[in-house]
Amino acid sequence: MINQINSIVKEANAAFQIYQNVSGADKKIFLYSIAEELEISGEEICKTASEETNLPVVRFQGELARTCSQLRLFGDIAGEGSWVNAVIDTADEARKPLRKPDMRKMLIPLGPVVVFGASNFPLAYSTPGGDTASALAAGCPVIVKGHPAHPNTSQLTAEAIERAVEKCSLPKGIFQHITSSSFEVGKWLVQHPGVTGVGFTGSLQGGRSLHQYAQNREVPIPVFAEMGSVNPVVLFKHALLEKTPELAKMYASSITMGVGQFCTNPGILIGLKSSALNHFTSLLALELSLTNSYKMLHKGIYENYSNELDKILYEKGVETVFHAHEQENLKASAVLARVPAKEFLKNPNLKNEIFGPFSLIVVCDNIKELEEVWKSFPGQLTTSVIGTNQDIEIHQRLIKEATQFSGRIVYNSAPTGVEVSHATVHGGPFPATTDSRFTSVGGDAILRWVRPVCYQDCPEFMLAPELKNDNPLGIMRKINGLFSREAIK
Amino acid sequence: MINQINSIVKEANAAFQIYQNVSGADKKIFLYSIAEELEISGEEICKTASEETNLPVVRFQGELARTCSQLRLFGDIAGEGSWVNAVIDTADEARKPLRKPDMRKMLIPLGPVVVFGASNFPLAYSTPGGDTASALAAGCPVIVKGHPAHPNTSQLTAEAIERAVEKCSLPKGIFQHITSSSFEVGKWLVQHPGVTGVGFTGSLQGGRSLHQYAQNREVPIPVFAEMGSVNPVVLFKHALLEKTPELAKMYASSITMGVGQFCTNPGILIGLKSSALNHFTSLLALELSLTNSYKMLHKGIYENYSNELDKILYEKGVETVFHAHEQENLKASAVLARVPAKEFLKNPNLKNEIFGPFSLIVVCDNIKELEEVWKSFPGQLTTSVIGTNQDIEIHQRLIKEATQFSGRIVYNSAPTGVEVSHATVHGGPFPATTDSRFTSVGGDAILRWVRPVCYQDCPEFMLAPELKNDNPLGIMRKINGLFSREAIK
Repeated sequence: MINQINSIVKEANAAFQIYQNVSGADKKIFLYSIAEELEISGEEICKTASEETNLPVVRFQGELARTCSQLRLFGDIAGEGSWVNAVIDTADEARKPLRKPDMRKMLIPLGPVVVFGASNFPLAYSTPGGDTASALAAGCPVIVKGHPAHPNTSQLTAEAIERAVEKCSLPKGIFQHITSSSFEVGKWLVQHPGVTGVGFTGSLQGGRSLHQYAQNREVPIPVFAEMGSVNPVVLFKHALLEKTPELAKMYASSITMGVGQFCTNPGILIGLKSSALNHFTSLLALELSLTNSYKMLHKGIYENYSNELDKILYEKGVETVFHAHEQENLKASAVLARVPAKEFLKNPNLKNEIFGPFSLIVVCDNIKELEEVWKSFPGQLTTSVIGTNQDIEIHQRLIKEATQFSGRIVYNSAPTGVEVSHATVHGGPFPATTDSRFTSVGGDAILRWVRPVCYQDCPEFMLAPELKNDNPLGIMRKINGLFSREAIK
Repeated sequence: MINQINSIVKEANAAFQIYQNVSGADKKIFLYSIAEELEISGEEICKTASEETNLPVVRFQGELARTCSQLRLFGDIAGEGSWVNAVIDTADEARKPLRKPDMRKMLIPLGPVVVFGASNFPLAYSTPGGDTASALAAGCPVIVKGHPAHPNTSQLTAEAIERAVEKCSLPKGIFQHITSSSFEVGKWLVQHPGVTGVGFTGSLQGGRSLHQYAQNREVPIPVFAEMGSVNPVVLFKHALLEKTPELAKMYASSITMGVGQFCTNPGILIGLKSSALNHFTSLLALELSLTNSYKMLHKGIYENYSNELDKILYEKGVETVFHAHEQENLKASAVLARVPAKEFLKNPNLKNEIFGPFSLIVVCDNIKELEEVWKSFPGQLTTSVIGTNQDIEIHQRLIKEATQFSGRIVYNSAPTGVEVSHATVHGGPFPATTDSRFTSVGGDAILRWVRPVCYQDCPEFMLAPELKNDNPLGIMRKINGLFSREAIK
């Protein structure tokens, strides 16, 4: 296997020599072509994904559409070209005591990137997902280690990408798919000297290990590991009073979406002790009892969920509010529990992510306690605020604290359902991710795979189009500190 | 000492609660005020720096001017405000199957940053240097561990910053100065849970250690360590023939600048075996013999330089071309050596940075050998190309290879003298730095200390000015994928 990995990495590096010079326009055609190939095989892909994950086909129709629009978004970004952050400071020959040189910089791709997809999103966060799309848009060859929980889906989507590579006459080595369930293979890939970056979506343990391997290499490389979080939600009084039934419906749906197997699943709901909170709790339990139960992704995840439930429901002060108690194998019980803030604050176990349709309501005696709970969270992908404008005004200081531990702050909505757009941040301080300065979803996900290079007094004919005087691509640039699409005279 | 560090970090975090909300306009006033205070104490600072480093006062007058213009550059960037990379995607209530939420993101400061300055630039790359300036511009409190090789300069510049803090009525905790020569203190700081980022300029060993400590924390944090390089220069035929005397003068000056104690010192010159190269070598030796010798920064650096010289000059194939053989203590001998490419390619020791006025000429038998030498370099801060347009056209493929291992590619100039501007990249792949995606000099150095946060459906009154509909700061934003300074209607 090591020989195979060596040759795969070698091929990726050979392909990089070509691919790094492919124009944005051609990368756009390529990324659109991947989307098209995925759509052509869409029916088979969705059917296979459904078989391998126990999730319904309709869910994968949605996920496929999202995956394809994500690929096209990165295609558009590559095609438009301004993402390279071209910055030009022109020379000043007359400057004293020394002439000011001409300095031009832009972002260029790092090199081959290894992608480890997530089990819970075989399309949008796996083989053809955001890591692959953003790395290819950046100009980096991609080596995907297919997730062993959905090998056939991974294979089918890899084949679609390979067809697009061929159609666009690009070197084969820009996309390679490894099917192996061995942990060692992943470790070798991350430690391989020819690999320059790693994208990972999965567990804290897995992400942390890969990050350590990468940082302890002779030449450390960046790892963006998205490892999930409990996504705390604070429920304020007036909103609770005004919209209890809608909120209960919305959160029941968010908690059970994808059988709770979302990294943005709302694992902790926080409110002040009140009849409104009690009413919401009862309605949420009722709504949960009306949702259907589905099988989880695979046995490992199911068993982990069961074990974690067994632990948390017996922690001090935790009271089970609703427990579906499914008997059938692999089917997840939706579970709602409740704990007084006093106990929550004392027990760090209660802040662990439980991957599945579980949520814990933390009941605070007063606002001071709520503040303490709020400030006690480690890094989160999301934090949500349910409040009327009046609530938000009253608690604005507390709400603003959330920026210190969250990548995204959601108002009056569920955290599940990550919009893919330019402004998306799917990231956050550790342990949500290994580097809070980046995002794995949205246009800026491309920034994980690039680095700036500055060319000093470079002859015009040697400059990349992005940096040439006449700005042939018409991109936005920063010239002597000012944004402009103008040519330099 | 641990107690002292705890209270320093605590104060930095308390100050962060206030400082993170200080406007760009006020940060600009503050950074300008630091520059002013440094200038007011300029004479004493330069005199002290000269005493502590054995470098002439005039050098520090230049370095102080650079440091102050760097502070003002970051002041201008903070004041203008577009650096936060505001991105707004407006809502689409009518979208099917789900409404599109309003998503707005911007960069916010990480939190307290620890800065380890360099011994060779007590002003521009130390206490009041680029790391401090960029972190303060970002909104991060700074804790400087003053360099033990220039404690008084560090203290004087720290006092200037402290006066600016007071004048601007900012919390004291946004800038704190620790004087300690203990390595342990640095380690504790990097490991402290209240620290969120680290800037370091210095040796590979030092940077690598701090990076490891930071990555092995319970919560890993970013470290930008700039650790230097050999800065290879390739000398092409026509340029050599045309301008031998000018080139010899330029490189003699670059090699001996600051007694060779520059991280961009040209440590390796590469050329094709030819009478032109021989001629250049003789003239360079002559020019070096005409330069004065100066004392190095301190005993440790001097001894290290002597030891490294003793080693490299006895490596196989290495021939000493010029050796000043200074007898006086601490005075560095300018040394020029030469080695055939064949030997160079076999011996990795010859690629190690030698901190001092030393350069090694690598003589290649043919272009194939030159290409091999060129491709053999690990990450570099700079690579330089000396060539006429004809040379550059002939060798363009080879020159372009340099992007793969360099942060900055310099044409027809010396790599020393890093221009501070928007387009500057002072970075590069490991071992030049610990993260090639960032720079420690130039406007974008601010990006090391910030992370994006996305606000979804956030009420207007809760948005930061940068994200408000009417764009009160008039900054450049990306709205629905298009750059604009317009308000959102």
